Amino acid sequence: MATPDVPKTCKVILADTIAKKLLGEVREMLTKGEQAKKPTLAAFLANDDPAAGQYAEWSKKTCEENGFGFDLRKVNKEVLEEAIVAANQDDAIDGIIVYYPIWTNNQQQDRYIQETVALSKDVEGLCHTHLFNMYHNVRFLDPPTNRKKSILPCTPLAIVKALEHLQIYNPILAYGNRLFGKTITVINRSEVNGRPLAALLANDGATVYSVDITGVQVFTRGEGIRQPRHQVLDKEGWGLKDVLPLSDVVIGGVPTENFKVPTELIRDGAVCINFSSYRNFDGPAVKEKASIYVPSIGKVTIAVLLRNLVRLIDNRSAQE
Amino acid sequence: MATPDVPKTCKVILADTIAKKLLGEVREMLTKGEQAKKPTLAAFLANDDPAAGQYAEWSKKTCEENGFGFDLRKVNKEVLEEAIVAANQDDAIDGIIVYYPIWTNNQQQDRYIQETVALSKDVEGLCHTHLFNMYHNVRFLDPPTNRKKSILPCTPLAIVKALEHLQIYNPILAYGNRLFGKTITVINRSEVNGRPLAALLANDGATVYSVDITGVQVFTRGEGIRQPRHQVLDKEGWGLKDVLPLSDVVIGGVPTENFKVPTELIRDGAVCINFSSYRNFDGPAVKEKASIYVPSIGKVTIAVLLRNLVRLIDNRSAQE
Repeated sequence: MATPDVPKTCKVILADTIAKKLLGEVREMLTKGEQAKKPTLAAFLANDDPAAGQYAEWSKKTCEENGFGFDLRKVNKEVLEEAIVAANQDDAIDGIIVYYPIWTNNQQQDRYIQETVALSKDVEGLCHTHLFNMYHNVRFLDPPTNRKKSILPCTPLAIVKALEHLQIYNPILAYGNRLFGKTITVINRSEVNGRPLAALLANDGATVYSVDITGVQVFTRGEGIRQPRHQVLDKEGWGLKDVLPLSDVVIGGVPTENFKVPTELIRDGAVCINFSSYRNFDGPAVKEKASIYVPSIGKVTIAVLLRNLVRLIDNRSAQE
Repeated sequence: MATPDVPKTCKVILADTIAKKLLGEVREMLTKGEQAKKPTLAAFLANDDPAAGQYAEWSKKTCEENGFGFDLRKVNKEVLEEAIVAANQDDAIDGIIVYYPIWTNNQQQDRYIQETVALSKDVEGLCHTHLFNMYHNVRFLDPPTNRKKSILPCTPLAIVKALEHLQIYNPILAYGNRLFGKTITVINRSEVNGRPLAALLANDGATVYSVDITGVQVFTRGEGIRQPRHQVLDKEGWGLKDVLPLSDVVIGGVPTENFKVPTELIRDGAVCINFSSYRNFDGPAVKEKASIYVPSIGKVTIAVLLRNLVRLIDNRSAQE
């Protein structure tokens, strides 16, 4: 007689479960720090995107529930730069978040705003120094002292935290190598999410296929992960049909309603994670094939935002 | 500046590390049980194999260090059967182990001896009822009460315990499905080790390629692991060249000096485990390619032997 109670389908893990664990860690970090005042985030909303407004509401709620201040500042595009400079100089503000995109037809101007945020208040990890360190697998801002941690962008870090929770990172391996042996496909290669994510995962030892409409690239630390950071190679002529059957983990981040990951190409027992605000997977079908399915990641991203804020405060104490 | 102290090569995990953890658990199980007397294993040595003698010595040492009695009985082949029957009836003996092979030219007679050991003292899990349950993914001897656990053969179970230690079993998944998504090659399909091992791993959700000189078979619980136990399919014309590049885990158990797993076929970052008394992997080469390498398993097997002995004693209390 076989064990009748073993479930036959995949395990669905909600972002809430992962976020709760992280928020517990964040509160613990906070009580250790003995801050003189409540850590406070200034959030700049300068667009009319309802999704950004919604995300700001969630962030506010999460902040307040976890002992953080959240100061939402709705400003016009034209005065945004000056408002950020003022917040940079204001000791009451510990971290700064800006909701993008702002100039939808001018990505370069958004990029200019990202760089306007002071490095010491860049809770999103979007300043060039933070990005440079991430791409170069450099963990600290102040080598060789190594007391000030470099900040990682929130959504890519949220997915790393999800993969740790799901035990895809193998804690038996040395820190920094814990994805060695894993093959991961990331569908999206944006500068904000997909490319940093592919780099982070490859820096930790994975073979990462980065897929977008222009084609496939592979990010790895080379044979036997002997390189200190990832390198990138084009895979001419490759597509999802080539990379999905090889992948232990499939991560979807395509920001459109129409795109669906072709379920029939996914490997039996793969781990599937969606970070798009649209559903990149056909839920019922993927549950018949995957071992684990994470339908969204947004709540983890907010938890990571607060984690980054505590890191910024710790970095400041390290300096003092 | 990249983190300079991240090791570039694979992690070697010694059997000793895994065995110590298991022996700690076994001692804990023992103190819970409140046995009236020291649990005692009778070990029958009826061959001249120096390897068996060595293994018996190790077992004796491990038993004595962990609060078990070990009664080594060297007997002639001709009186072995009667000696086992006497031990079956002796209340001072809790478990019986026999060192095989005995009749090297007559495997059937060894099989007859395995069946002579009483089911309630079969610490090696080699009686037909134990084997039948293992192949059918049945965990208990007394359904539907399910208080008496079925015993699994020591070397296959030792490898399962090693894979749990190495976090290849994913504890996020439901018990019984924790290898779903993993591809494993087992090289050896003997009735004592390779076939039971392939069955155990497939019953837990893995896709297992079982390789011997006659060819390749694949053991799985079917698409989406919907079957309650493994099924077996022949892969006509397949060989190591086909299965090694697909495998997350490669397990060698070929009992000859000459056989080596071809390193160049192993996937970058694979987990490699040797359970043969010969080295099936080219150590220095495999360490340049694997993420984890376990060069031997013998000490884990002895720890599992004691774990099985405690299970037998628990089963007896469950009956009383």
